[in-house]
Amino acid sequence: MEDLKRKIDFCLEVEKMNSVFRKTRLLDSTRFENDAEHSFHVALMAVVLSDYADEEIDISRVVKMLLLHDLAEIYAGDTFAYDEEGKKTQKDREKKAADKLFSILPEKEAKEFKNIFFEFNEMTSADSIFANAIDRLQPMLLNYFSGGGSWKEHRISKQEVLNRLGPLSESSKTLYEYMFNLITNFFGED
Amino acid sequence: MEDLKRKIDFCLEVEKMNSVFRKTRLLDSTRFENDAEHSFHVALMAVVLSDYADEEIDISRVVKMLLLHDLAEIYAGDTFAYDEEGKKTQKDREKKAADKLFSILPEKEAKEFKNIFFEFNEMTSADSIFANAIDRLQPMLLNYFSGGGSWKEHRISKQEVLNRLGPLSESSKTLYEYMFNLITNFFGED
Repeated sequence: MEDLKRKIDFCLEVEKMNSVFRKTRLLDSTRFENDAEHSFHVALMAVVLSDYADEEIDISRVVKMLLLHDLAEIYAGDTFAYDEEGKKTQKDREKKAADKLFSILPEKEAKEFKNIFFEFNEMTSADSIFANAIDRLQPMLLNYFSGGGSWKEHRISKQEVLNRLGPLSESSKTLYEYMFNLITNFFGED
Repeated sequence: MEDLKRKIDFCLEVEKMNSVFRKTRLLDSTRFENDAEHSFHVALMAVVLSDYADEEIDISRVVKMLLLHDLAEIYAGDTFAYDEEGKKTQKDREKKAADKLFSILPEKEAKEFKNIFFEFNEMTSADSIFANAIDRLQPMLLNYFSGGGSWKEHRISKQEVLNRLGPLSESSKTLYEYMFNLITNFFGED
């Protein structure tokens, strides 16, 4: 029963994802998206777009990874993709937060979840590179199809957006080219 | 490219889950939960609680099912779990909505997603019964741990809540007993 209690406590704690707000707005621009909504969207998008992975991936691991990938933000907060200052301390802040959050779970699950969480951040496996590709594609789609979104709001340059395409170019030629064309369409040719 | 366009259109359409509101409030009671947040929460909870399934389940199918299970509400709206009038037409409304939504996808994926969606609703497989168990447990936990939530707001009786425990009793003795005890604790012994 002690294990069950810890797992339920964890389930209650991750509900706070509903209150961690990102810099990306919803497609209808009415408000900022939160981490729970983002995590749902990327997990589902990964299922829908899994056929476009160039290498063999285990989609069930990718989905699990995407459900977990932002949980540390419950304590560490969201770091904007284009905030170079914030990104310098992001890894340390999120490691501490992940240790704190996953330690709510029984030891076995804590270890398993931490491993998946760090695999996402290290981007060394095919699964984690594809998961990162979807994580980057999603806000780009929201920005593009809402007329600019956080790109406009924070005066992000074409080059800064292109710099975020790494995991897409490494894991899916199709999704990379699709997004590259949208970016060129939005910002114009150089 | 036509297939890719349809899949991206689907990804954009399901973003509307952020704007479908449920009758359940967040744990901090500040506002109603939306379908994207709920779907994220149940998918992650299924991963965390999968060891408590009495029968063998395929957790990757359960997670996929939970990511899809409420998508029809984008067109059909949320039907409150205790709204017996609304539930009479729910199946028809959701079938029409699912047909409309999934037809955005290429034929192969449309068929696959529809099958999983209907499997969830028919509750005849071990995977779908466990998925339904988690889908019922989640709002019960939010209600219990926020001091009553939608139970109080809509004057739901202890018996009405107990009536919702079917899939829990069928798929997980542990989770059923845990939730049964919380309900008794909240509403009192008869």
